[in-house]
Amino acid sequence: MSKSLPKRSEDYSLWYNELVKRAGLAENSSVRGCMVIKPYGYAIWEKMQRTLDDMFKRTGHQNAYFPLFVPKSLFEAEEKNAEGFAKECAVVTHYRLQNDPDKPGKLRVDPNAKLEEELIVRPTSEAIIWSTYKNWIQSYRDLPLLINQWANVVRWEMRTRLFLRTAEFLWQEGHTAHATAEEALAETRQMLEVYAQFAEEWLALPVVKGVKTENERFAGAIETYCIEGLMQDGKALQAGTSHFLGQNFAKAFDVQFTNKAGQLEHVWGTSWGVSTRLMGALVMAHSDDEGLVLPPKLAPIQVVIVPIYKTGQLEELMERIRPMQMGLIERGISVKVDDRDTERPGFKFAEWELKGVPVRIAVGMRDLENGTLEVARRDTKEKMTLPLADIVNSVDQLLQDIQQNIYRRALNFRENHTTRVESYEEFKQVLDGKGGFVVAHYDGTSETEERIKEETKATIRCLALAEAEEEGICIVTGRPSKRRAHFARAY
Amino acid sequence: MSKSLPKRSEDYSLWYNELVKRAGLAENSSVRGCMVIKPYGYAIWEKMQRTLDDMFKRTGHQNAYFPLFVPKSLFEAEEKNAEGFAKECAVVTHYRLQNDPDKPGKLRVDPNAKLEEELIVRPTSEAIIWSTYKNWIQSYRDLPLLINQWANVVRWEMRTRLFLRTAEFLWQEGHTAHATAEEALAETRQMLEVYAQFAEEWLALPVVKGVKTENERFAGAIETYCIEGLMQDGKALQAGTSHFLGQNFAKAFDVQFTNKAGQLEHVWGTSWGVSTRLMGALVMAHSDDEGLVLPPKLAPIQVVIVPIYKTGQLEELMERIRPMQMGLIERGISVKVDDRDTERPGFKFAEWELKGVPVRIAVGMRDLENGTLEVARRDTKEKMTLPLADIVNSVDQLLQDIQQNIYRRALNFRENHTTRVESYEEFKQVLDGKGGFVVAHYDGTSETEERIKEETKATIRCLALAEAEEEGICIVTGRPSKRRAHFARAY
Repeated sequence: MSKSLPKRSEDYSLWYNELVKRAGLAENSSVRGCMVIKPYGYAIWEKMQRTLDDMFKRTGHQNAYFPLFVPKSLFEAEEKNAEGFAKECAVVTHYRLQNDPDKPGKLRVDPNAKLEEELIVRPTSEAIIWSTYKNWIQSYRDLPLLINQWANVVRWEMRTRLFLRTAEFLWQEGHTAHATAEEALAETRQMLEVYAQFAEEWLALPVVKGVKTENERFAGAIETYCIEGLMQDGKALQAGTSHFLGQNFAKAFDVQFTNKAGQLEHVWGTSWGVSTRLMGALVMAHSDDEGLVLPPKLAPIQVVIVPIYKTGQLEELMERIRPMQMGLIERGISVKVDDRDTERPGFKFAEWELKGVPVRIAVGMRDLENGTLEVARRDTKEKMTLPLADIVNSVDQLLQDIQQNIYRRALNFRENHTTRVESYEEFKQVLDGKGGFVVAHYDGTSETEERIKEETKATIRCLALAEAEEEGICIVTGRPSKRRAHFARAY
Repeated sequence: MSKSLPKRSEDYSLWYNELVKRAGLAENSSVRGCMVIKPYGYAIWEKMQRTLDDMFKRTGHQNAYFPLFVPKSLFEAEEKNAEGFAKECAVVTHYRLQNDPDKPGKLRVDPNAKLEEELIVRPTSEAIIWSTYKNWIQSYRDLPLLINQWANVVRWEMRTRLFLRTAEFLWQEGHTAHATAEEALAETRQMLEVYAQFAEEWLALPVVKGVKTENERFAGAIETYCIEGLMQDGKALQAGTSHFLGQNFAKAFDVQFTNKAGQLEHVWGTSWGVSTRLMGALVMAHSDDEGLVLPPKLAPIQVVIVPIYKTGQLEELMERIRPMQMGLIERGISVKVDDRDTERPGFKFAEWELKGVPVRIAVGMRDLENGTLEVARRDTKEKMTLPLADIVNSVDQLLQDIQQNIYRRALNFRENHTTRVESYEEFKQVLDGKGGFVVAHYDGTSETEERIKEETKATIRCLALAEAEEEGICIVTGRPSKRRAHFARAY
């Protein structure tokens, strides 16, 4: 609290790391690459979970839970998926420790407790889930099977960053099975819409919906749909993916069903997920040099009331504050009254700014006598004087305004940082200048995509669904192109 | 569905396993000892989670999340805790797979990707959490620290059983830190009360609250409090534990704070947990030879409506059923209308009985014309005719009655299966007869406790808090005793 945050303009990366830690969202643990999600950060994640879970249930999904471990023989069954995750997975090889004969008081792996088959800590659960679906699906009557799981997964990333890239992270993974390709595709697109709606209405993060190129596709998928957000430093962030798996996993695990005509067919699959990475997106999209700026819908505390008083006055003041507090709570607004007598108001203001509480109300005796309150909004830092009598309605409206304003601000930013370019020269200039999405024609080959990545560090974030087909010329090779791609440097 | 369940009286153990699988609660996975929690089972677990989480929050706790892995050096820091869990822990030794040069298409552990320090998959999180608390706690102002975590844990059990004993299970673990022993003890007891209230009011499971003997204490605790339920086969089941850790973990991880007098002291700790084991308790305490009997408060579906109709009538019938359905939903009752036209009513009745839905309403055209409905309660299998006009109130009341009846029935069972004995002879007779809790004097030594266990397979479930001090004589050694213990064979 004592030191101010690094400035975004000076060191965006340092600003992010410091903010995440100082606002009490998360910190690094003593386990390489694994984070501790602190109570304030976890409270935001819980709100995300609750909201998404309700959305999943409204679209007909049920939760279940599958094992943390994947036996190696299942892990390797779907070849592309295995290849995609083999290089970064944690492997359990033993099931017991024993006293180390050479080091008193220390333990070592018991060499006699080696597993016959290694277990992979799940980096994603397609393998274990599809091996289970084999027994759950016999007939078309068992379909569609619409399952979601909230779980932890592990990917042994070498360079990690709080929330954005961690060895262990929390997520949800939907795994569905369908009788036809059309149904599976419809499900894939439906969940993309659910994610987009969640991102825009709750995170206040405008997203580009699109399809990944082959290079960026999920290992084992036929098609990967994604939502891509833009951060304040002009870098893109993939905020959710929804995969059409075709019959890949059904074939790898021999999941067949008898259709209405009595014939045996392989099942069609999807999978889709969002993770604690969304916490990183939330921080990077909206926050400022004073701290977090949280969208009211996800803020654990929506309103903080700070009593301003002289010694001896607190009791009396608190008695007058309580009815207002109750009124707000009854309206479904979460309120914190910061009545600590160990800190001064200025310190409290700075602390709640750092924590991103959307609305702050300072209440002194004189305000109450005048029938007015000093209300400050976190997003614009605007201060206003509002009548006490109507404070519940005013704050309710203000929270809605803030939610909308944060979204609009992010949308304006994205619109100002989305540039359609016609040459490679211009492409590079924009990337090295203001950054953001660069929308350009390319010839559709992996070679060109990789060349651009090597030369500029920009990747194709997606082929946006909203981008119409259009005759054009590849900015690199001059070959014909039928559609523009969204390029960006990305997290 | 086709085959009837094994009978409890013939093979209780088989009955349990079959019921858990057939009712769609859980099944074994292809990973040794790990289960798949199926949607219907998970829906019950979600209700348990939501309820407990609310109770934890009302008692001032916040959720957070700590890493899945514990580095070996932290794992071994608290010696007794390490010793207690070393023999049954999954150990990650490598972080990468590679193509197996000898077996095309297969993978093997990459020998060049060996971790410098092994990681233990958490069997419980005291070590990783207390190593974190070291940085969170400096002053008395940082205390109490009241944190809970919902997580998966792994204990490499050799003999496993769905829900009751699995290699991976889901649980919550509270970890709190306090300035004084008194406060920590008060927290330990408070959480025991929370668990007891949850067990009795939600699971409808009467529990004995008590303290474990040293033999049965949590590894690393000074005192372990527990709640013990009784299953229908006369075996006890530990349903939750709350540990007073003293300063053991604070000392092992050097967690100190400056007290109000400016002196440095070690912090006092507690930890407490319940797990998916509660699912096993729920099944074994109440269910019968037809299937599950779920307490209404935890039933994912509280009322099932089965339309009884002739071909062509369904549409019309459904239109008349809808207002009733809506009325029940508005009252906060979860309702399923089973309008499948592929199954006959008798099949549906049996299926919902198997799944333990507390109330079943069969609705035919004639019933509607008469203004009455046929209502069946799952717990007593009683059928009644109730007026349609008041059905919402009747069903609401009936659900409350069922909740109470299930509890009372379990309480009666426990009272009839709790026997105070005065001799070892009688002790064995009761155990081999009706079973249940045997309340007896013993001399308070571990030797006697172990001898009884060896000779009878009964363990001391707890020294019950409700059991007054009383002069007596050990049933085995004849030595003096001041207090009776609750013995039982147990899960």
